[in-house]
Amino acid sequence: MPRWKLTLEYDGGPFVGWQRQETGPSIQAALEDAVAALTGRPGSVYGAGRTDSGVHALHQVAHTDIERDFSAQQIRDALNYHLKPNPIAVLAAEPVAPDFHARFSATGRAYLYRILNRRARPTLDLGRVWHNHHRLDGDAMHEAAQLLVGRHDFTSFRSIQCQSDSALKTLDRLDVRRAGDEIHIDVAARSFLHNQVRILVGTLELVGRGKWRKRDVEAALQACDRAAAGPTAPPEGLYLAAVTYDPQENG
Amino acid sequence: MPRWKLTLEYDGGPFVGWQRQETGPSIQAALEDAVAALTGRPGSVYGAGRTDSGVHALHQVAHTDIERDFSAQQIRDALNYHLKPNPIAVLAAEPVAPDFHARFSATGRAYLYRILNRRARPTLDLGRVWHNHHRLDGDAMHEAAQLLVGRHDFTSFRSIQCQSDSALKTLDRLDVRRAGDEIHIDVAARSFLHNQVRILVGTLELVGRGKWRKRDVEAALQACDRAAAGPTAPPEGLYLAAVTYDPQENG
Repeated sequence: MPRWKLTLEYDGGPFVGWQRQETGPSIQAALEDAVAALTGRPGSVYGAGRTDSGVHALHQVAHTDIERDFSAQQIRDALNYHLKPNPIAVLAAEPVAPDFHARFSATGRAYLYRILNRRARPTLDLGRVWHNHHRLDGDAMHEAAQLLVGRHDFTSFRSIQCQSDSALKTLDRLDVRRAGDEIHIDVAARSFLHNQVRILVGTLELVGRGKWRKRDVEAALQACDRAAAGPTAPPEGLYLAAVTYDPQENG
Repeated sequence: MPRWKLTLEYDGGPFVGWQRQETGPSIQAALEDAVAALTGRPGSVYGAGRTDSGVHALHQVAHTDIERDFSAQQIRDALNYHLKPNPIAVLAAEPVAPDFHARFSATGRAYLYRILNRRARPTLDLGRVWHNHHRLDGDAMHEAAQLLVGRHDFTSFRSIQCQSDSALKTLDRLDVRRAGDEIHIDVAARSFLHNQVRILVGTLELVGRGKWRKRDVEAALQACDRAAAGPTAPPEGLYLAAVTYDPQENG
């Protein structure tokens, strides 16, 4: 049965998150319904990253098996047709090897976090940014962020509900830069702990406001205690921006 | 009575347009209501550009007279408070000379038009772009656009309802460039005719699709007949991006 890699974009606002849940509409369920509408039988869709409620994707990757013989363009267009009116788009469908797994084959993930840093509320970007009206020092945030790059025990930076066996992770990139009246945080790693990006952002925000200094970030990391780090930044500023695979896995 | 220059951002989607109308909510009316709530008496707000229904602003300029003695920060924050929950934000308030007029003192206006040029529908940018699934040649659009730069009779490129005495206008800039899966059109002039930007975009789109060539654009301009140009592009891709004033007028 042919396996398909799907590249997805979505507005996470109306959903309980990626994962199918009893409590409300999920992106996974919307996609599985679209696959079922296309093929006439139930189908499973697996995602590279299980984004939380309200978290967006510019580039999520999923895979699914579709038995009938469609072209890549037909799969993309038919799934988009059946996904209406959900704010989920299949940007591309590509045939991949039968052992390709969107989650387990992924070798890297990147997220973008957008903070709208001004007094006035967002208008065009409502639900797309964290509105933060404290004047944030992006350079200080970037400098403190560099302490977190590399291999560390990120126990302080994961949800207490996180089910990962180990909190040892390697952050490949954590860049903070000002873009007009926004602060953009770019973060990349092989994989992340639950809420890790949002807790990193919530902690760096304390540095940006001048409430914390670099040494406080270092102390939070060393404490290995969720209570030692900053708050979890809101979901609406977070975007899954890229998922990468080894070239031979990439279809 | 002190005059204030207001720099505004708004989502044009829920409004009948800038101008106060009987038929529905307008940006002007929302602002005038906010001024009245702040001062306790009716006030008029004048805009630099009368954006149509559905057209957005990244940077609109308006002026209003507010008698009581507030600081610029107080005006901005109080108007934003009273504007809730409208998707309109006062980015800045500045005191200006009593003869400053947002519309008549303006020496230039710039618009951005965004086309989402892909098969899949917009998700995060729904209502923020013209979704056009024909593959558009941005270079060909840019080349044809250069025929329209300069001083011309733009009769073919204005709404038949346009009330301007003359269709002679000088286009200072009409740049088309691809940005990922979007086509961005940047246009600047001292002033524009009604629907001029949207008709320019609707005409260049025909070039992008390969239905028209440069000579067709030239013929449309020379015809001085609205029916000779392309269709009016939809409002949701259009953003008022800048309004400029002579330095001495600028508060």
